[in-house]
Amino acid sequence: MGARPKHRDRLVSTAAALFRQHGYAATGINDILKTAEAPKGSFYHYFPGGKEELGAEAVRYAGALVTRTLEQLHREHDTAGAALRAYGDLLAGWLADSGYRDGCPLATTVLEVTPQSEPITAAAQDAYAAWRQALATMIAPADPDDAHAQRLASLAVSALEGALIQARVARDPAPIRDACAQVAALIDVS
Amino acid sequence: MGARPKHRDRLVSTAAALFRQHGYAATGINDILKTAEAPKGSFYHYFPGGKEELGAEAVRYAGALVTRTLEQLHREHDTAGAALRAYGDLLAGWLADSGYRDGCPLATTVLEVTPQSEPITAAAQDAYAAWRQALATMIAPADPDDAHAQRLASLAVSALEGALIQARVARDPAPIRDACAQVAALIDVS
Repeated sequence: MGARPKHRDRLVSTAAALFRQHGYAATGINDILKTAEAPKGSFYHYFPGGKEELGAEAVRYAGALVTRTLEQLHREHDTAGAALRAYGDLLAGWLADSGYRDGCPLATTVLEVTPQSEPITAAAQDAYAAWRQALATMIAPADPDDAHAQRLASLAVSALEGALIQARVARDPAPIRDACAQVAALIDVS
Repeated sequence: MGARPKHRDRLVSTAAALFRQHGYAATGINDILKTAEAPKGSFYHYFPGGKEELGAEAVRYAGALVTRTLEQLHREHDTAGAALRAYGDLLAGWLADSGYRDGCPLATTVLEVTPQSEPITAAAQDAYAAWRQALATMIAPADPDDAHAQRLASLAVSALEGALIQARVARDPAPIRDACAQVAALIDVS
């Protein structure tokens, strides 16, 4: 296996950022190439399936970053609720730092092109499943009922996703902190 | 005050449906005119501010429909939690009936164009505030702590918004029913 070509990685991370900030349809291939400072010929070389293939890769890349962050916070905190509150603080800070232009790396793309796009829908299904699993793994030590831990993890993902939307619109991180605090309280008494 | 012209109303409701299903950027003015069966000249007559003005109107229209549905469910159910579960059942049914193409009438547009678009951001702020208020009004009789009722209402909106995204991706209504059941349980013991 050769080294992963740098242009390919940069195209994926750039696409993830632009889709998150401006949406999938509004981001053209030329915008991605220009921001990534990648040569024009590189696009179809790395992504013969075109924008949809890059979209699925961007969803996978962004999904994996979130999963790794959740796993890191799990190691750093004593309870799942504390880790969730810490994640809410991180999200609130990132959103404010971006002037409320950022948000969930998946939601915008997902709402525009699922379920129509099979490759992007499949990548998003895997990403949400990995987030739920990372959260359920955090919750499990305090909650021997696996199905209950799974439902709490699903609620945590829903609450975070929705809170990011409300916070973006309100230009105020309060919905994120409110959602995390309430779900964290549910988790830590479970 | 004259009657509201029928083409104007149909353009707004059609735009709301198309933005919800395909996104704001991917929906062209010609798509809206064609689906609404409205004459080309009618668009800039009713919306001199162009697509952005129609976008803000569509957000207001869709937001008001949700608020009215929540108020209706509040009248039909004994507790706020029961009303929320009933709303979750409605959403789950609509989403499945649409082949998982529908979803929140605001989220897609909001994630694409806020906070950049001032008119659409303002319309969305009003809509989310109205939903939170409708829910807080439901919760209030059982929860004399107004700030607590407001936080629960904010969590309910976040959980619904995020659950609609997870359900769309998974092509499965379970995340909606899970989120509503857990938030309803929190509300009814508050």
